[in-house]
Amino acid sequence: MSGDNSIQRKFYLEDIPLDEAWAAFRAALSEAGRWGPFDTERVPLSAANGRVTAAAVWARLSSPHYHASAMDGYALRAEDTVGAMESAPLRFVLVDAGGHSSADSTTSDVGMPTEHGGASAPRLPRPSAPPPPSAQAVNTGHPLPPWANAVVMIEHVQPVALPDGRAAIEIRAAVPPWNHVRSMGEDMVATELVLPANHRLRPVDLGALAGSGHATVSVYRRPRVAVIPTGSELVPAEAGEPGPGRMIEYNSLVLAAQVEGWGGVATRWPIVPDNLEAIRAAVREAAAGHDLVLLNAGSSAGSEDYTAHVVESLGRLLVHGVAIRPGHPVILGLIARGTATNDKQQTTTGELFTPIIGVPGYPVSAALTGEIFVEPLLARWQGQPVWRPPTLQGVLSRKVVSHTGDDDYVRVVVGQVGERLTVTPISRGAGVITSLVRADGIVRIPRFSEGEDAGATVTVHLYRDPRDIARAIVAIGSHDLTLDLLAQFLAERYEGLRLSSANVGSLGGLVALRRGEAHLAGSHLLDPQTGEYNTSYVQRYLPGQSVKLVMLVGREQGWMVPPGNPKGLRGWADAARADVRLVNRQRGAGTRVLLDYELSRLGIEPAAVRGYEREEYTHLAVAAAVASGAADAGLGIQAAARALKLDFVPLAHEPYELIIPVEHYESELLRPLLDLLSDDSFRAAVAAMPGYDTAAMGQVRTVNPS
Amino acid sequence: MSGDNSIQRKFYLEDIPLDEAWAAFRAALSEAGRWGPFDTERVPLSAANGRVTAAAVWARLSSPHYHASAMDGYALRAEDTVGAMESAPLRFVLVDAGGHSSADSTTSDVGMPTEHGGASAPRLPRPSAPPPPSAQAVNTGHPLPPWANAVVMIEHVQPVALPDGRAAIEIRAAVPPWNHVRSMGEDMVATELVLPANHRLRPVDLGALAGSGHATVSVYRRPRVAVIPTGSELVPAEAGEPGPGRMIEYNSLVLAAQVEGWGGVATRWPIVPDNLEAIRAAVREAAAGHDLVLLNAGSSAGSEDYTAHVVESLGRLLVHGVAIRPGHPVILGLIARGTATNDKQQTTTGELFTPIIGVPGYPVSAALTGEIFVEPLLARWQGQPVWRPPTLQGVLSRKVVSHTGDDDYVRVVVGQVGERLTVTPISRGAGVITSLVRADGIVRIPRFSEGEDAGATVTVHLYRDPRDIARAIVAIGSHDLTLDLLAQFLAERYEGLRLSSANVGSLGGLVALRRGEAHLAGSHLLDPQTGEYNTSYVQRYLPGQSVKLVMLVGREQGWMVPPGNPKGLRGWADAARADVRLVNRQRGAGTRVLLDYELSRLGIEPAAVRGYEREEYTHLAVAAAVASGAADAGLGIQAAARALKLDFVPLAHEPYELIIPVEHYESELLRPLLDLLSDDSFRAAVAAMPGYDTAAMGQVRTVNPS
Repeated sequence: MSGDNSIQRKFYLEDIPLDEAWAAFRAALSEAGRWGPFDTERVPLSAANGRVTAAAVWARLSSPHYHASAMDGYALRAEDTVGAMESAPLRFVLVDAGGHSSADSTTSDVGMPTEHGGASAPRLPRPSAPPPPSAQAVNTGHPLPPWANAVVMIEHVQPVALPDGRAAIEIRAAVPPWNHVRSMGEDMVATELVLPANHRLRPVDLGALAGSGHATVSVYRRPRVAVIPTGSELVPAEAGEPGPGRMIEYNSLVLAAQVEGWGGVATRWPIVPDNLEAIRAAVREAAAGHDLVLLNAGSSAGSEDYTAHVVESLGRLLVHGVAIRPGHPVILGLIARGTATNDKQQTTTGELFTPIIGVPGYPVSAALTGEIFVEPLLARWQGQPVWRPPTLQGVLSRKVVSHTGDDDYVRVVVGQVGERLTVTPISRGAGVITSLVRADGIVRIPRFSEGEDAGATVTVHLYRDPRDIARAIVAIGSHDLTLDLLAQFLAERYEGLRLSSANVGSLGGLVALRRGEAHLAGSHLLDPQTGEYNTSYVQRYLPGQSVKLVMLVGREQGWMVPPGNPKGLRGWADAARADVRLVNRQRGAGTRVLLDYELSRLGIEPAAVRGYEREEYTHLAVAAAVASGAADAGLGIQAAARALKLDFVPLAHEPYELIIPVEHYESELLRPLLDLLSDDSFRAAVAAMPGYDTAAMGQVRTVNPS
Repeated sequence: MSGDNSIQRKFYLEDIPLDEAWAAFRAALSEAGRWGPFDTERVPLSAANGRVTAAAVWARLSSPHYHASAMDGYALRAEDTVGAMESAPLRFVLVDAGGHSSADSTTSDVGMPTEHGGASAPRLPRPSAPPPPSAQAVNTGHPLPPWANAVVMIEHVQPVALPDGRAAIEIRAAVPPWNHVRSMGEDMVATELVLPANHRLRPVDLGALAGSGHATVSVYRRPRVAVIPTGSELVPAEAGEPGPGRMIEYNSLVLAAQVEGWGGVATRWPIVPDNLEAIRAAVREAAAGHDLVLLNAGSSAGSEDYTAHVVESLGRLLVHGVAIRPGHPVILGLIARGTATNDKQQTTTGELFTPIIGVPGYPVSAALTGEIFVEPLLARWQGQPVWRPPTLQGVLSRKVVSHTGDDDYVRVVVGQVGERLTVTPISRGAGVITSLVRADGIVRIPRFSEGEDAGATVTVHLYRDPRDIARAIVAIGSHDLTLDLLAQFLAERYEGLRLSSANVGSLGGLVALRRGEAHLAGSHLLDPQTGEYNTSYVQRYLPGQSVKLVMLVGREQGWMVPPGNPKGLRGWADAARADVRLVNRQRGAGTRVLLDYELSRLGIEPAAVRGYEREEYTHLAVAAAVASGAADAGLGIQAAARALKLDFVPLAHEPYELIIPVEHYESELLRPLLDLLSDDSFRAAVAAMPGYDTAAMGQVRTVNPS
């Protein structure tokens, strides 16, 4: 923070680097006795799965705790079997558990526990050894008589009756000592280490604990975390549609679910309005009964100041602003919650503190704050290493610019097309929660880096199994609602298969195909020269490549207008009316090409069209602009208009095709998608959307047959 | 199953191959309407984390559902800012939400919701547009007035008072339209696909669902699974130490924890004795209220017959025996539970069935049956793909022999030593649950294979994160209790670091070091020629290699004898007494070398020692043999004797060293272990064990200095 470097000053004026923030937090937590594994508790094994051992566990019992037969058969002395042969079988007199021979002994009940389970089985008197050669019937798991040291399988003996009426068996091969015997302690020997401390218990571990004589186990207590949402503009999700200026509060839902997933117990507070006293009261109450308080600021910039004031007034403000993006307004502190008294000696042992994290209001910032600060803390408190997400290396498809003073957490989608792994940043704001929903992972751009160029190899910290990346069909191009339906049908019908689609317009899709970044591109590009769709563009952008053009759907384009069509739009020429504000699609979108084509046919200059410069990336976004009153009309498809209850003025009918290089067309990965095009229920679902025509669905054209 | 191949007949007589068993089960489940995703239920978002969507979710609301300011600042019309420059600022009259200018308007409260949160905020009247140039104060997240289309940040304006007393601002740069505005629908547009069906909900997904207007979500119901342990020999873990012939029941604990981990809800039945009617009654009751019944056979071979009889008498027996090892006595069937009636029409719609899986009694078989049959079924019922464990390729350190008729599931440990990944089969019976606890993964040997040779590259299906393999110190060699203490201290002190130790005796450890399969070997090998320990063996087994010999501990070897030393053993010569049965250690064990050395000094032939041929692999196993009465004495360390409450007759003092090739000695991985040797609390814990001497702990010798 020295002032001799103006760049540093600029970026460091308020925020401190992530590692310094953590170091300050850690030091304060250590001092307050809140660093390191947490309190322990003893739980029954039936409630212990997934919990973490707080101490090493040593075997109380051996398992088995006696020499047990490993087979149904006969226990005997191995030395008595020496010399037994097929041609010269040896006879063994059957004895019972008392060592006595009998004319009527049976195989299954001799020396066995009674049929009624339970711990109260009587201990058998210790018998004297019978005279050799003797044998005693045993079943699997039952104890060997103390005079025996081997078992011969029931299948390998011949029952015989001796002349004196005693039961006997004949064996025709010698057996070695300890044949078919599970020795005492074969599994575990009393006093052995069963499990170390800090071990997350799995189902088989519970078996080992029970088998070695434990009915309970000492584990770390689950940390209790209070989640307090603040903001006068917020309403709970249960309250239904919010009024203007109101927003649905869901950060507390996300943070609480994160906490539970990381082993904590979360308590969600009701929404607290932006009122210093109300927030202070909530924090004080939460700190008294929890191990950690997450205070989520509202979306207004001033609301973080409330957090800082509250922390300062109730304890110690350690960090105000961390140099990470998104998420920089993070606040770290400690809340005093009174003075500890050592019960036994009635002496004061120091002040108690509960750590508090001020979580920024934007949802992406809030979720990443959970990952960056809350997860490591909960892991530490439970004696666990911080979970490291799986990573992979991929190639950036676009340049990423980063603030040099910040650690940047860039959300990305990853597409595997052939052998190539393409990493595409999702360039959306911290308010766009769907950017995290869609993200396959995060690329971290460290401090002092200005970013990465397109083509750079980067490490992605994945949100999903790396193998799922290969099970995604990557569609980049024009957006159509039919793609959402395709995604839905694929997910329902084909386990683990995803459609990952990015909407960059038809031309953008062809560029992505050329770069090998997508398996297919939705496209509806009109060639103004030929009046034909897509063909000439494919020839130009994918020259010489063998490509399939698969008809997905025919659809109507037209003006989307407010209900009742208040400005009375009727044709293309209305685009130039002085009283009509349009909203446009981005350059490269098929709908934009169509508009430009029709405008030029009518000799209308773009400059004459009001709102021509306002670009949106999807039909629905255009519809939303009209529905909000920001524009009077936009060109788009009927389904998007209907979805937002707009009126629709049809202007043109166009084909929407999937452009698929032949190597992907013929791949196993795309087969389910192509199969769906001839599926009756999928076609019916598409046809049910207004303005869609499925007559030609699935028809295939080929450019440059291979 | 044709009879023309005698090998096939031999193996297929009873068991059917795994794929055929699954096909039969699947077909019967389909016919019974129990295949495919399960019933659904609607849950609040706060209870939805980790659940799986049963239907696609479409946005009900747009988010934001209005044009929102993305900054604290002033809303205005972008077109009014054209021409603003540093040298020529433009003035904007401040207006309130009604469009009226005022002499006393303030920044923070104009047009905002009241400070009291909640859904009942009054809708503001729609104002008329104020005359340009006007600006209205807005905070982040607050709605843009309908006449505005841009926001200028508060930091970039200069407040001024006009001569007539009205408040105004000056701006010094033009802003583009939609500057600092979050457009309606920027995150989600109403009717858009938010999440597809069959999607496992993550915390951020809950945010997207809430933000798009959902307070609940339709998910698959969690399958209800009954777990019924049977066996008259079983006692619950809570009952304390079991009597002879009794065993602690823990398979139901393992199976229930597995079920919960795979998304089901498990109900554990009390132990049912081996009684056909009792088992039948339990199964009938369980089938009526559950989606799946797991009937766990007792350990006796006959107890599987109970399962088969019960299934046959209550429904359909589909499969009796599957050709997998371990686990082949698996039983698959359906239990009838009455007749379904369609509520609406009061018509019979067919018989209802509950699937049942007869789970073998041996714990390893039981746990693997869970993984092979239960997990895929629960995944299917919840619309999820079967979880595929991570895999890695490694080199087998030992030959694996497999039955040609069976799919073999071989438990293995995997050690990374340098770049080499060594896969070592754990050759323990299906009764040894600790073999699964210790296993790093499973190698599957398919049917028709007779196994794999040492040196073969095999695929391991891992039970742990592949990256954890590299965080294990591999110790192969002699066993000592100090190694267990080392493992415990490492786990407690160093996050994620494990000591993976295999007990193969001192010589086995040197062989493992030579093959590059271990980082270190515990060794106490006496050279009969020199009377020195370890050095000459290291020179012989690791010729020319630079090796460190690190003193771990000095310890006493002696006779472990029953309490009171009933046979009165005193010296080495007692080994040859006719009334003394010894238990021995395996060839290559340092303790065995010591015994052989002393016997030869006394001129005693091994054949003269009773029990010489009975070999155990650890001190504790030898102690267990003495404790069980199977032997009168065994050579071992005092701590092992004490652990099993045996008496100890000291005979010799020996050093126990860690043999460590210099490249591992100097590696980061081993540093924590070596540091522990000078740690006071570790030394104290070792010294507290009887017969241990820590005076020389940590002393280092070097063979072949590099």
